[in-house]
This record gives sequence, C-alpha cells and structure tokens, in this order.
Amino acid sequence: MKHKITFVPDNVTIEMEHNGSLFKAFKAAGVYVLSSCGGKGNCGKCKVIVKQGTVEPGKSRSYLSTEEAERGYVLACHSHVLTDLTVEVPPESRMQAKHKIATGANTDALFKLLREAGGCLDSRIIRVYMELSPPTLDDNIADIERIRRALDERGFEADHLHLNFLVLRKLSQVLRDAGWKVTISLFYVGDVSEVLDIFPGNVTKKRFGAAVDIGTTTLVVYLVNMTTGQIVDTASLYNPQVKCGDDVITRIVYATEQNGLQELQELAVGSVSTMLTELSHKHGIDPGMVDYLVVAGNTTMNHLFYGIDPQHIREEPYIPTATFFPLIRGKSIGLSTDPQAVVYAMPNVASYVGGDITAGVLVSQMHKQEKVSLFIDVGTNGEIVLGNKEWLVTAACSAGPAFEGSGIKFGMRAMEGAIEEVEIDPKTFEVNYQVIGDTKPIGICGSGMIDALAEMYLTGVIDQKGRIREEIKSKRIRRGENGLEFVLAWRVESAINKEIVLTEVDLDNLIRAKAAIYAGFGTLLAHMEMKFADVDKVYIAGGFGRYIDVERAITIGLLPDLAPQKFQFLGNTSIMGAYYALLCDRLRHEAEAIARRMTYVELSVSRSFMDEYMSALFLPHTNLDAFPSVKHQMRKAKTWYPPE
Amino acid sequence: MKHKITFVPDNVTIEMEHNGSLFKAFKAAGVYVLSSCGGKGNCGKCKVIVKQGTVEPGKSRSYLSTEEAERGYVLACHSHVLTDLTVEVPPESRMQAKHKIATGANTDALFKLLREAGGCLDSRIIRVYMELSPPTLDDNIADIERIRRALDERGFEADHLHLNFLVLRKLSQVLRDAGWKVTISLFYVGDVSEVLDIFPGNVTKKRFGAAVDIGTTTLVVYLVNMTTGQIVDTASLYNPQVKCGDDVITRIVYATEQNGLQELQELAVGSVSTMLTELSHKHGIDPGMVDYLVVAGNTTMNHLFYGIDPQHIREEPYIPTATFFPLIRGKSIGLSTDPQAVVYAMPNVASYVGGDITAGVLVSQMHKQEKVSLFIDVGTNGEIVLGNKEWLVTAACSAGPAFEGSGIKFGMRAMEGAIEEVEIDPKTFEVNYQVIGDTKPIGICGSGMIDALAEMYLTGVIDQKGRIREEIKSKRIRRGENGLEFVLAWRVESAINKEIVLTEVDLDNLIRAKAAIYAGFGTLLAHMEMKFADVDKVYIAGGFGRYIDVERAITIGLLPDLAPQKFQFLGNTSIMGAYYALLCDRLRHEAEAIARRMTYVELSVSRSFMDEYMSALFLPHTNLDAFPSVKHQMRKAKTWYPPE
Repeated sequence: MKHKITFVPDNVTIEMEHNGSLFKAFKAAGVYVLSSCGGKGNCGKCKVIVKQGTVEPGKSRSYLSTEEAERGYVLACHSHVLTDLTVEVPPESRMQAKHKIATGANTDALFKLLREAGGCLDSRIIRVYMELSPPTLDDNIADIERIRRALDERGFEADHLHLNFLVLRKLSQVLRDAGWKVTISLFYVGDVSEVLDIFPGNVTKKRFGAAVDIGTTTLVVYLVNMTTGQIVDTASLYNPQVKCGDDVITRIVYATEQNGLQELQELAVGSVSTMLTELSHKHGIDPGMVDYLVVAGNTTMNHLFYGIDPQHIREEPYIPTATFFPLIRGKSIGLSTDPQAVVYAMPNVASYVGGDITAGVLVSQMHKQEKVSLFIDVGTNGEIVLGNKEWLVTAACSAGPAFEGSGIKFGMRAMEGAIEEVEIDPKTFEVNYQVIGDTKPIGICGSGMIDALAEMYLTGVIDQKGRIREEIKSKRIRRGENGLEFVLAWRVESAINKEIVLTEVDLDNLIRAKAAIYAGFGTLLAHMEMKFADVDKVYIAGGFGRYIDVERAITIGLLPDLAPQKFQFLGNTSIMGAYYALLCDRLRHEAEAIARRMTYVELSVSRSFMDEYMSALFLPHTNLDAFPSVKHQMRKAKTWYPPE
Repeated sequence: MKHKITFVPDNVTIEMEHNGSLFKAFKAAGVYVLSSCGGKGNCGKCKVIVKQGTVEPGKSRSYLSTEEAERGYVLACHSHVLTDLTVEVPPESRMQAKHKIATGANTDALFKLLREAGGCLDSRIIRVYMELSPPTLDDNIADIERIRRALDERGFEADHLHLNFLVLRKLSQVLRDAGWKVTISLFYVGDVSEVLDIFPGNVTKKRFGAAVDIGTTTLVVYLVNMTTGQIVDTASLYNPQVKCGDDVITRIVYATEQNGLQELQELAVGSVSTMLTELSHKHGIDPGMVDYLVVAGNTTMNHLFYGIDPQHIREEPYIPTATFFPLIRGKSIGLSTDPQAVVYAMPNVASYVGGDITAGVLVSQMHKQEKVSLFIDVGTNGEIVLGNKEWLVTAACSAGPAFEGSGIKFGMRAMEGAIEEVEIDPKTFEVNYQVIGDTKPIGICGSGMIDALAEMYLTGVIDQKGRIREEIKSKRIRRGENGLEFVLAWRVESAINKEIVLTEVDLDNLIRAKAAIYAGFGTLLAHMEMKFADVDKVYIAGGFGRYIDVERAITIGLLPDLAPQKFQFLGNTSIMGAYYALLCDRLRHEAEAIARRMTYVELSVSRSFMDEYMSALFLPHTNLDAFPSVKHQMRKAKTWYPPE
C-alpha cells in the first residue's frame, strides 16, 4: 500500500510505502529539512508538523516540548507513514537552498602576486591552434603523427605525447570536419604531454576553469576566464550533503553505509556540476570548454568528492587515503565539464587539516613573512596555523559546529531570520538584537551567539563558567524544559511562534567550542615555545569570521587579547586559494610547498592541549591576566565582578 | 509473427521475425557460416541447405549450380524467412571455430637476443613488494604518502607518482586487509610513474603478460610468465570478425555501418578475452594478474581492436588515425585482464603495413644485417620489406586473399579437408593429392593451389597466361558453369558430393595475386636500384608460408628464382615479435625504431608497380630468363613448352 505525502510550503507530492520513514520521504522528495545527525534520530533538528493524516511518531516526543507536541510536531526521522499526509516544514527546520555568501574576491592581491611571479597565468594546460596541411599520397602520415609534427614545429616537447581514448576515437572525424584547422589542449605532467581534447577551429581564447570550495556546509564555484584570469561569475549553494549529517564525522559514518559514499559524492559533485552548468549557460559558455578545476576542501570533503572511502580518517591514528590527491578527470566523478577536464585538489596536510587551510595560508602569504602569524578558520571545524617563512605548525581543534548552530537549541547558520547581533542592557537585562534580513527572528547564528555570550557575561547574567545566575530578577531568566535559559526574543517577536532562548546546555556547548579553539592556539605556541605577544598578525578566515566582532570574541576568550590592528579578516580563503592555484601554476607549486612544510600537531592525544582546554573552559579564561582588555571592560561595566 | 529456425548439425534454435534475413539469423544464433563479403550478397560463400520450411531465396539462384539449386541450396544473405525452418550448414560452408595453428615459438632465438640486450626481461612494469610499518599517531602520513616513502627508500623515482582512480578507491582497504604487506605494480612513461595496481601479499613472482596476434583471419594468444619469460601456454581462434567480411576493406565498410565498429571490436576483444581467461584458468592463474599485453596486427585490425573508426584507411590518401598507438588500459576496451593492464600495440608503418610486419622484421633481425634481405608475409594481404641495417623500404601488394581461399570456387583455409598438395601425371593428367587430416576433400588451400598451378603449368594443362588448353584430351578438362575447369577430385572422392575443380576464373585470380606480390618485390628493388641477385635472404612469414613448397612457388612466379638456401621460413612472426616486445622493453624500442625507419612505398599509384604487375601476369613471368630454374624444369618435363 502506498500513501501520498504532500510537503508544504514546497507543495511537492510523492508516494511512499506504508510504514516508510518520513525522513526518507523528505530525501526522496528533495525537500530540505534540517538534520545534524543525518537521520540517525539523535539531534532533534528535523522537526516537522503533520497537518493532515497520521504518522507513528516513535520516540519523537522525547525531543519535543509539550507545546510542540500539542501543535502536531514530530521528528521526521522517528516517524513512520500510516496514511496520506500533508506535512509542513516550519521555518526553524527549513534550510534555504541558496543563501548569501561573501564571494567578492580580492583579485587585486592575486594579480599583484601574479605580477611578482612573473605575470604567469596557468601554464599547466595549453591550447594550441594549428592549421594542418591536409594529407596527400606524398605526405601520408597518420593523423596523430601529423599533430605530433605540428607540435614539434612549434617547439613543444612531444616525445612522450599521449592521447587519451576519447581523443583517439574522435580525432579523425574532428580533423576532417574542421578542415584540418583545430585547437588542441595540451596538458603536462613531468615530461609527459597529453592531448586532453581537440576542438574544431580556433578556440584558444575560449578556455575556462573553475575554482571550487567544497565546504562542509557550503559549496562555492568561481567560473574563471583562463585567458584573462578574470572571474566570469560566482555561485554558491548549501552543500546538499548536509542532509546526511552536519559535520564530517557524521558524514564519514554515513559513507560507510550501503551506497552512502556514492550518494555523498553524487550530492556534492552534482551541485558543483549544476552551478557550473548554470553559470556557463548564463554567460553563453560551453561547459565543455571548462578544462581545469581546482577544488579546495577539508580532507574528508576531498575524499567524498572523489568517491574515496574516508572511514580511516575517523579512527585513531586518523589516516586519510590521500593528502596530495592524484589528478583525476571530470568524467571519472561525473562533472558536467569537458569530460577530460583535469581536477586538482589543493593539497591537504592531515586528516583534519585540509586543502582549504593550505589555500588559506597561500592567500594570507604568512609563509613568506619574517614575523610570526596566526591563521584561524572557524568553520565547521576549527583549524589553526602558526608560523612564518621558516616554519609552519598546524592543528585542528575539534571545536565542533556550535558556532554554525549545531547543538544549540535555536542555533542556525547566518541566513535570513538569524539573530546576528545582541545587546543586553546591564540594568534592565532587556535585549536588543539585529536580525539578518530585518525580519522576525527564527534562531541565532554564530556572531549572535558570540555577542550574546559576551553580553551575558559582562552584564553578569552568567558567571565565569557560563552558569546562569538564577538569583537575578528578570523574567528573561527562567527554568525551561532543559534547565535554566535566557530569553532572547519573546514569542510575539519571533517568526516561529516560540520564544528564542539560550539554554545552559547551549552556553556550555559554546564555551567548549571557544575553549577548544583557544587551547589550540596555546598548544601550538607552547609547541614552539612562544607566547601570544610574539604573534604579529592574526588572520581570520571563513564566512563566519567575516561577521564577528573581534572585541566580543576576545571578551568570551575565543580570540586572544591582542591589539585590534593585529587582526585581519580574509573572507573565504578556501575559494580564493583555489582561484590562485587555478590561475598560476607557480602558486599551485607554492601551495604544495606550504602543505609539505606544515607540521601537524595531533591535539586529540596532546596532554598540553588538555591542560590548555581545561583552563579555557571559563569566560574569558582561568587566567584573567591574559585578557587585560576584558578585565578593563568588566571594571567599566561595574556590574558583577568575578572573584579575583 | 515469429518463426523458429533450427540449425543443423549445430542443433541451435532461435526465433526470427517473418521475412527476416537468414544471414542475420545465423549471426543471431552464433552459428558460423562462411562469408567473404560480410553478408553484402556478392561473394556466394554462405551456401546453406533448407531441409524443412520455406525461404524467399532472392537472387540466390545466380550464385548456385543447377545441381545445388535442386538440392535445396540457397545463399543465406539473399534469403528471407517465410516459415519455421530447419537449415543445414554443409561442410563447405562451415568455418571451424578452432583450427591448428603453428604456435611453436622459437624461444631460443629470443633468449639469445635477450642475452645480447643485457639479459633484460621487460622493465616497463615493475612489481614491488613492501612490508609497510602500520601508521601510528607519531607516523600518521596518508596511505599514498606511505607508499611514496617506501618507494623512495627503495630508490624508485616517485616524484611524479600517479595513482589511477581504481587504485585510489581501493587503496586503504587493501593496505589494511593485507596487514600493510602489499605488492604494487609500477609503470613508467617518461619520468611519470603510475601505481597500476595494488595486491595483498607478495605477488612479485605472479606477473603474467600476453602476446596477441590480431590477424585478419586468426587470433593467437601467448600467455607468458613475466618472471621467467617462458610461454605458459598458447591458444588460437579464428577471428570471429570474419563473419563481417574476409578482408580488411570489407570490415572497414562494415565498421562504418550502425554499431558496426563496436560489433567488430567486441568480436575481436571478446575472443582474446575468452582465450586469456581459458588459458589462465587452465593453469590456475588469476586473469587479474595479467598486466601487460602486446598486440600485433595490421593497421586496420589495430583500429578495430581499439574501437577507432578506420574509414580513412580505405580512402585515398589512405590515412590511419594512428600508426604509433597510445597506450590504453584493458578496461577501456573490455579485456578480461587486470582492468588497469597496459595494452601496447606494435607500431604500424602506414595504412597497409602494420604492426605485424614491424614484429616480423624484429624477429628476422634483417634490420641489423649488412646484407640486403627481403621479408614477405603472404597473409590475407601481401606485405613485403626490403632492406638492411642502413635502410628499410616496405610496401603492401593488395594481393587479396586468394591464397586463403577467397575468390576461389573451392578455396578454403588450411584446415581439415583442404587439399594441400597436388601432383598431376604429365602423361595421363591423373591427379594425386594430399588432404589435411587425411579425410575426403572439401576444398583446396593455398599450398594446394600453388602446387596445382605449378603442376598444371608444367604438365601443359594451362598455358603461360593460365588458360586451360581445351584441346588436351582428358575428362578432367571440361566446360562447367563458369567456363573451362580442371577437376582435381571427383564427386565420389569428395566429402561434399561435388567435384572439386579449379576454374579459369580461379586460375586468373591466383595469377593476379602472385603477380601483385612479385611486382611488389620488383618495385621495391627498382626503388633502391637493385636486383634480385643483390638479395641475400628471403624471409617468409605467416602461417601460410610455413606450408608452401618454395620450388613450386618459384615455378608459378610467386617467389623470385633464388637459390633454395636463401629462403628461410619464420612462421608466425607477428605473434613472435609481440612476444619479443612483451618480454624486453629494449626490443620494444627496437620495434619502434624499425617502424620509424621503414619507408613506405604506395604501390597503388606507382607507375613502376603497374608495369611490373603487367609483366608478372604470366607463368612464371613474361621474362622467362629471370626464372632459369623454371626454364630447366620445363625442359626436363618435356611437355608443353611455352613459345620462347
């Protein structure tokens, strides 16, 4: 027996077996619903409302408030379909398919680097136009030999000339159809040159490439004119793998399940293909002219993109199959480019420091500076690099995706409806907040959380350990279903007909996340026998970093207490670094040298890290002397002083 | 409406649409029936007998004798199915799936060469066994880097190390399942090394390769132990492409038809795969351990084997896509070997001088000798090479496959039932013949035809132009349906209940074929301003060459009149040359140098060739002085002297 399931507001209808999983119905219908655990039943995010019909709700109830249960909420992953259904995805469970990502690339810095590197655009793939003399009885060499001769005459090394199967099979036809006037693309690895593809006529100037950021949460594509080096256009989408889990660990587990790896690969590659195709068509470009792609992502995302089993990344001693990925062809993974397009992955350092970080260091150019810099990318994970032109050390902090909303009751990513700024009146404890898109709020994003945490601490709403002071007289402080909580927005203000709160559990998660990152800094410095004062620059990368208030981040002890001018926001350095390597092969080599130079410090087994972490589980830190500016603010705030 | 068609003696039944082609029914049923034209309707070979049921015979009648028509013979290609049928394939239309081919390889000569070349066995693919230390937290490099490091430690160049997609995807699993004790196969092109495959445990000594002769008529496979260099076993099959046409031209035409190219490729590759699989299993070898194949064939056969459109080979100025074929992988063409097995094609010289001839020259070693040699391969075509260590010239004679039975009324290949030797009593004109397999004859093969032609000429049955002397009183000389004919075997002697004859049309075809080959010799000699007397050795290659009587071949003017000790039979040099190149990369390089050194002379537009050809359309030749030994025989025979 089958049931019809209609999803609103999407207005999509599918059929499902009796007793089938409602979560699977969402996946089958292509309707997004939030899920951090990928349908495993333990994150409580996939809340939906059954408007008509009946489901077997399973253990849904234990993840729902009484009010939610009364209003027909269930968890999709726990529910089984019993009748025809109409299911609503409430705003807080919705994931917008597109969101605004800062893709404005700082091309000035790149072109300055290119000039320094000798003005080279990418020299890895070369297009050569040739007007061949048609064969005669007196000049009857084979088609391939004619091309080899033409290359020889033009001074190209063609000793180890290879033609792939695809070119081999169409060669004779293309040559004759094009009247012997063709463009070939030549690709060099070592001293072997390969005819990647052959095109009729002169298309030497119609070469395109793509830089791709395969983020755990977001996919970004730059379509690049390889002749001018300019970005033709950019696109971004949420990584649809999110529905299989929020973080890399959940996805690795998902990948080990039947067809999981293939599904994850198809989701990411499919989205990149879609963006590439749409961008190309929008600008009248044949996607078959895109012959070089540079992708940057963390090590797990690279494995998934290539369809390589990532399971050993997750198990001690945390070994990936590859850090330096062999070149592969677009067709091998199903990209909608030239099937022979060369796909290069920015080199990774270790299981938890990926090509996105190598890309970031490349963009920061910290690896060429005399003075020591600190690089931090607070994305879904928290990766940091410390170093200068002599040395580079790196670590991953396992901060978890709290600042991206995961594990936070009303946490969400920085998209429309997210509270992004918070002010709390120190006397009345009334809350002022700013919402992305100036709409009613549906949740709170990373920068909002940092603000809230800092304000709650400075106003004395919470103590140094993040515990809410129940003794404060404010109706915003109350005991909810998960213990004490602080109300940021009242029900009437919100778009979800619910109060938006931060619970003590949320606060604890945020403090653990910030402590992990700060402890990472400390461990790397200790590793090099240095102090924060030795750090000349702090580069902050990632979409997240772009919006945070450094002062507030220092207040909660997420960032070290350094002078504001030492901090520099770099934006999405993953996509920028990929773009650098795409355009210039010398910069690609530079990225490889960076990855080789980086010494990876495994924090998960570091005694020093555990000590640093324990000390950092306070606001801003156990050692308040390390945060003089915070001490100063607290004195100024004249509210609740911590015991000194 | 469908009809059941049963084939006897094969006892196979299939269903066919009403009015469907009977020829297609044979193909669908997988029942072999002779056909030179591939079902085009113009060779008259696919004679079958309708035992039960009715067909629309079309133009069958014009290819059949009255007697055949009365006995229910039709041509399969002209007939359409009207009812359920029982169809018999008579012996003369049958193609045995297997036949005896001389595969006894002269390995002594090869191993002598190998010793001279420094004793090298193939160095192109190397198996390296490594016992890797398992990763730890302190030694946590990626799996690929662990392999790279192990290679570095063993002194292998791993700077440009590539791993293909297949290895990449299974690497982590194989390493761990095998307890970090693995064998990798490394393949070098230029300075790029590729990990071809990875195997658990130590399989360095379990490396196998295959030499393959992709002949127009016959496919031969040597399964070779790459550690010892010894041939494990050999197999041969008729090339099943024969059902799409006897000669390369017919197959090229067939390839241009819908799916024709794919069909031809699958037929040849499928047969080679079957032989490889059977040979491997017979000797307890995993076909996945066969990682290197060297194929030798003519240029068209190479194109078909690789699935490359051969159509321009056939049209002036006769241009192949490739003479030096890029390396491809077994999986690309569907071979049952290691999917990553490297397939190398012996280099071709031009559209009509292929890798089989390069292989032949390699085996003859004529390219290293001071004195001038002549190399001849009278296979389906007739290719010749003249030269020494200074120079090599080559040509294809377009002799046509007359000596393989095509265009000869009772012509057949050298298999059971073929008349292979003929003697004619000069007085009584009675015939003594020898049949392969000592059975009743069903036709006549190449060596039999040469014998018959020589004997008929020496006994005066035919004149210098090959015309039968009607005035001779013998019941063997008679007028048949195609004009004058000579009866070799009476109906009662034959296995087909018909007289086996040679007609004047047959004789004319044979003389044209021998004239083309002899004219080829003459043209190449003239090209070099040389004479036959300057030729020190004549190497005769090909299965055909093994059985012919040199004296008789000189008598008819197929071979030049040189001293018997100058002739040397080399057997199947195509497969032997492939075997040489398989085992020793220096010999592979030597073959490439040979192919590059050979100057191709296009005979089809050569004025000199036309003159030589016209002069050779006599027995033995217009200029009898060029054939002193034949002159001597004729005097001795004291029968009919030609006008002097």
